Amino acid sequence: MNLLLKKIIAETKKYTKEGNVATYIPELGRMDRNISGVSIVDMNNNIYSAGDTDVKFTIQSMSKPIALLLALMDNGEKVFDKVGKEPSGDSFNSLKRLATHNTEIPFNPMVNAGAIVVTSMIKGNSKEEKFNRILNFFKKMTENSDLSVNMDVFNSELKTGDKNRSIGYFLKENNIIEEDVNDSLENYFKQCSIEVTCTDLAYLGATLANDGVSVITNERIVPSRYATIAKALMFTCGMYDDSGKFALEVGIPSKSGVSGGVFSAIPNKMGIGVIGPSLDKKGNSIVGIKILSEIVSEKKLSLFS
Amino acid sequence: MNLLLKKIIAETKKYTKEGNVATYIPELGRMDRNISGVSIVDMNNNIYSAGDTDVKFTIQSMSKPIALLLALMDNGEKVFDKVGKEPSGDSFNSLKRLATHNTEIPFNPMVNAGAIVVTSMIKGNSKEEKFNRILNFFKKMTENSDLSVNMDVFNSELKTGDKNRSIGYFLKENNIIEEDVNDSLENYFKQCSIEVTCTDLAYLGATLANDGVSVITNERIVPSRYATIAKALMFTCGMYDDSGKFALEVGIPSKSGVSGGVFSAIPNKMGIGVIGPSLDKKGNSIVGIKILSEIVSEKKLSLFS
Amino acid sequence: MNLLLKKIIAETKKYTKEGNVATYIPELGRMDRNISGVSIVDMNNNIYSAGDTDVKFTIQSMSKPIALLLALMDNGEKVFDKVGKEPSGDSFNSLKRLATHNTEIPFNPMVNAGAIVVTSMIKGNSKEEKFNRILNFFKKMTENSDLSVNMDVFNSELKTGDKNRSIGYFLKENNIIEEDVNDSLENYFKQCSIEVTCTDLAYLGATLANDGVSVITNERIVPSRYATIAKALMFTCGMYDDSGKFALEVGIPSKSGVSGGVFSAIPNKMGIGVIGPSLDKKGNSIVGIKILSEIVSEKKLSLFS
Amino acid sequence: MNLLLKKIIAETKKYTKEGNVATYIPELGRMDRNISGVSIVDMNNNIYSAGDTDVKFTIQSMSKPIALLLALMDNGEKVFDKVGKEPSGDSFNSLKRLATHNTEIPFNPMVNAGAIVVTSMIKGNSKEEKFNRILNFFKKMTENSDLSVNMDVFNSELKTGDKNRSIGYFLKENNIIEEDVNDSLENYFKQCSIEVTCTDLAYLGATLANDGVSVITNERIVPSRYATIAKALMFTCGMYDDSGKFALEVGIPSKSGVSGGVFSAIPNKMGIGVIGPSLDKKGNSIVGIKILSEIVSEKKLSLFS
Repeated sequence: MNLLLKKIIAETKKYTKEGNVATYIPELGRMDRNISGVSIVDMNNNIYSAGDTDVKFTIQSMSKPIALLLALMDNGEKVFDKVGKEPSGDSFNSLKRLATHNTEIPFNPMVNAGAIVVTSMIKGNSKEEKFNRILNFFKKMTENSDLSVNMDVFNSELKTGDKNRSIGYFLKENNIIEEDVNDSLENYFKQCSIEVTCTDLAYLGATLANDGVSVITNERIVPSRYATIAKALMFTCGMYDDSGKFALEVGIPSKSGVSGGVFSAIPNKMGIGVIGPSLDKKGNSIVGIKILSEIVSEKKLSLFS
Repeated sequence: MNLLLKKIIAETKKYTKEGNVATYIPELGRMDRNISGVSIVDMNNNIYSAGDTDVKFTIQSMSKPIALLLALMDNGEKVFDKVGKEPSGDSFNSLKRLATHNTEIPFNPMVNAGAIVVTSMIKGNSKEEKFNRILNFFKKMTENSDLSVNMDVFNSELKTGDKNRSIGYFLKENNIIEEDVNDSLENYFKQCSIEVTCTDLAYLGATLANDGVSVITNERIVPSRYATIAKALMFTCGMYDDSGKFALEVGIPSKSGVSGGVFSAIPNKMGIGVIGPSLDKKGNSIVGIKILSEIVSEKKLSLFS
Repeated sequence: MNLLLKKIIAETKKYTKEGNVATYIPELGRMDRNISGVSIVDMNNNIYSAGDTDVKFTIQSMSKPIALLLALMDNGEKVFDKVGKEPSGDSFNSLKRLATHNTEIPFNPMVNAGAIVVTSMIKGNSKEEKFNRILNFFKKMTENSDLSVNMDVFNSELKTGDKNRSIGYFLKENNIIEEDVNDSLENYFKQCSIEVTCTDLAYLGATLANDGVSVITNERIVPSRYATIAKALMFTCGMYDDSGKFALEVGIPSKSGVSGGVFSAIPNKMGIGVIGPSLDKKGNSIVGIKILSEIVSEKKLSLFS
Repeated sequence: MNLLLKKIIAETKKYTKEGNVATYIPELGRMDRNISGVSIVDMNNNIYSAGDTDVKFTIQSMSKPIALLLALMDNGEKVFDKVGKEPSGDSFNSLKRLATHNTEIPFNPMVNAGAIVVTSMIKGNSKEEKFNRILNFFKKMTENSDLSVNMDVFNSELKTGDKNRSIGYFLKENNIIEEDVNDSLENYFKQCSIEVTCTDLAYLGATLANDGVSVITNERIVPSRYATIAKALMFTCGMYDDSGKFALEVGIPSKSGVSGGVFSAIPNKMGIGVIGPSLDKKGNSIVGIKILSEIVSEKKLSLFS
């Protein structure tokens, strides 16, 4: 498997030249477009990897299904009174659907509006306690107790987050966010600024693929039902408004982020983490999708084949 | 398995009382809400069934992924120049997205607009020849050479199809339909009026589950790639605007129709056909979903578990 | 006044070079972009004119407020159960508002959807009788018994009217059009194809400006209340989605058409008709607006000054 | 005239029972629904009035055309680079159009989004200086040097203004607001909280009706062109999403506010101010519109009659 990954990294390297690194958060624009890397963790905790697997980057939207798990554990499925389960066909930071649909809950937890609501529902006596609970949960899910927040990215997000503030106040007006808007936004920005590597992402995927159970300790981290929910939502809504195309072309539950990472959870088989900062127009890593596509094709991993 | 199905039919019978039979096409309103049935066909052509499996009903939207297969075989993947691959979050007969999005191709082949485009792309020298090709293809996919059109339903659709006509002329105006609009609509209405039983639906699912290969003759009917496409689109868009919820609650590629049928294709395992005419607000069979949900739960068939 | 008009025609001639002649109906594309003309009829039936006032062109959307008057005389104000009174901010042939607003009546009688509904409400025992009533009414309003339909333009509209057909079937589906859709569309296309000159338009405006009373015979043609309604709707919705800008820049009740004509009704003062086939992006005559603007400015005719 | 107004107030009193007082800002909900009043100021500074003309209420959206005048005097017509001139057909606090239209400037200065942009463009070295300039300008326009802000209403708006904050951050994200969002919103809320009487409103209208010139001192307060712009926008967009209907039913440039006031400017004739706190579904004073309608009808004041 290591050889296969090495070959795939080499063959897909050319795609790092296509597309553009995200610049809407200035700090993200500093990423090196030339890096690419992949890690796989299977159900027996075997790790395979190739390329730039040591590079750290912020988790961004890949945090969304993970924060959802914690919100589900805190609130049960009444989370879905405040956020839907349907793909929207719109871009991740759109206000269109919110503003035009009568049911004014966000379409799903993978668009920014839904993710902000989800973060607002995570319990704690203070903004700080809430965020500590988030960070600790992410440490468990990645099997990495050293995770931390990139404060430069966090501050950059705070400074440029007006669209998310617009969304936040819209949700507050409609009582979908019940907590303080600014606290919820701040924790959301902070959660997006947690730094990870490909290997951290592969462990995230592996824990979900393993039904919510740690592949290292065999300890159950999240209930089976919630692991299923996260995988299903990653599948239908995880790749922004190319989720349908990705389901058809690649066909595995995955979530991307604008830092250029993607993680996948292939039920009962493996977790995969990839990185490649240059993005297509929908916000997905170009080389990352190519790497995933090659692995799925070589190993016949599509859920539909 | 037959015993399990019998038990499930008995236990879910009460759900036939909920919801309403579709009435927007008057002929559909005549269906008996009390019937329910299920058939399963596995990869070795074993058939299991229970309930009202002899009742005939029209295939309606369940025809959409099948017509797509024929259009793909006729045109290759340039079908997707005229219709997208993304779930829309809107109801099946909505003009909203067409009218408000700049890219004026329909979101996917499972909404009416997309399905009308797909049918318009099926080849033939005349309206009649095109429809014969459709009907013959449906006979192959269902392993049933006796399929025929319910002319009462067809005429009822013709009389009441003004919304679809509105969609058709919109698509014509934008050159997305290149053929004659009325011919395309007529063949679309006719294709929706093909009569099937649960068992026909189970074979449709089985052929797709078996990678496009007949479970009876082992003859390849559609290319593997197209079978994958159909299953992926059924998964992300097959249950109207509850597709996301269904993916999360049940988790198998399925397509429903307003006649109350649903068919599912579980890769490498089985095809399932269910019937139960009474629908929820999104247009999906209430008892049908309950039956599928029970089978998936008992046999651990969700793609995510 | 004749001298002033001559001067204005000369000074605005250069604007005939800007913009484009409408081509979406092929027959319209044949118009000579170099022509421009203006006629004024005052309350004492004095006629002033300059430029190409003999040129005939089709009335197009300028027919909309006139057909509305006849529909009001046929049905009373319950016309407004089927069409609203509000500007929409959208282009004249848009389906956006219809498709996205819950109240599915067209926003106003000046957009195509509303105008098609209005024409469908004009009484008569047959399609032909209905159209004869329309034509006769237009003859009265223009004080011109020789008006007739340009059959080439009519046939061109019939051939290319798919967007209007889409709108028509949408309205039929929602029971907003109660008559036969095809008959209503045919009469609408025919009404748009009536040929007029600048002077005919000036009389249309004069009759409205004169409270619905002929400036020639002093006979009342339409009730005062309906003349007010027509002028109000021309003011708020008459210049497509530049109606607000035109109210602010020019400030007189006016209706434009894609043939390049505009007619205005200045209460108790005069009617004006202008022609100039080349259009701006919103579909209004560039030179026509310049001519109106000059007259209003010279004679202090804005309703707000 | 005083007698006529007295009669009208008496005859329309019953309409104070219909509709509801606005409650979305809690302080507004305290208004007494039973009051009604009217003041008229003509071009010779004659004042006529009847009913509760001493009652103070906050100016709310009636401040929008006045703030626009100051922004125009500060910036010239490049104000319209940041806000349009078209009616939108949507409710005043809607985000629909902003979120769904590509041109992301607000439709006009009479919807909240446009009004917030306008207020953000008023010059000054600090938030406080800007607001002082606003207040002083309102004093001039109303000929009332005692105008002041109702701080309870202002604080109530600050507390409940999340929808406007959502709009503000959306506009900031798109660089339509260039100033500090919170400062702009605070001044907007404060401007809406200025207290007036019917008579203040009548003077506002009179100054505009008199081409921007004080009817007391004959001093020019605003350029003629800007007075025209304000009247035109009041006419096409002044009565929320019933502006079209009001143009047709009443037909004079008017602006309403959710406090139940309306002011009108009838060119070269008079200004009118009315109050009546109970509102129809669109947010316009029910009794206020009845009073205006009676005056217009009795005195033949519609711009179209």
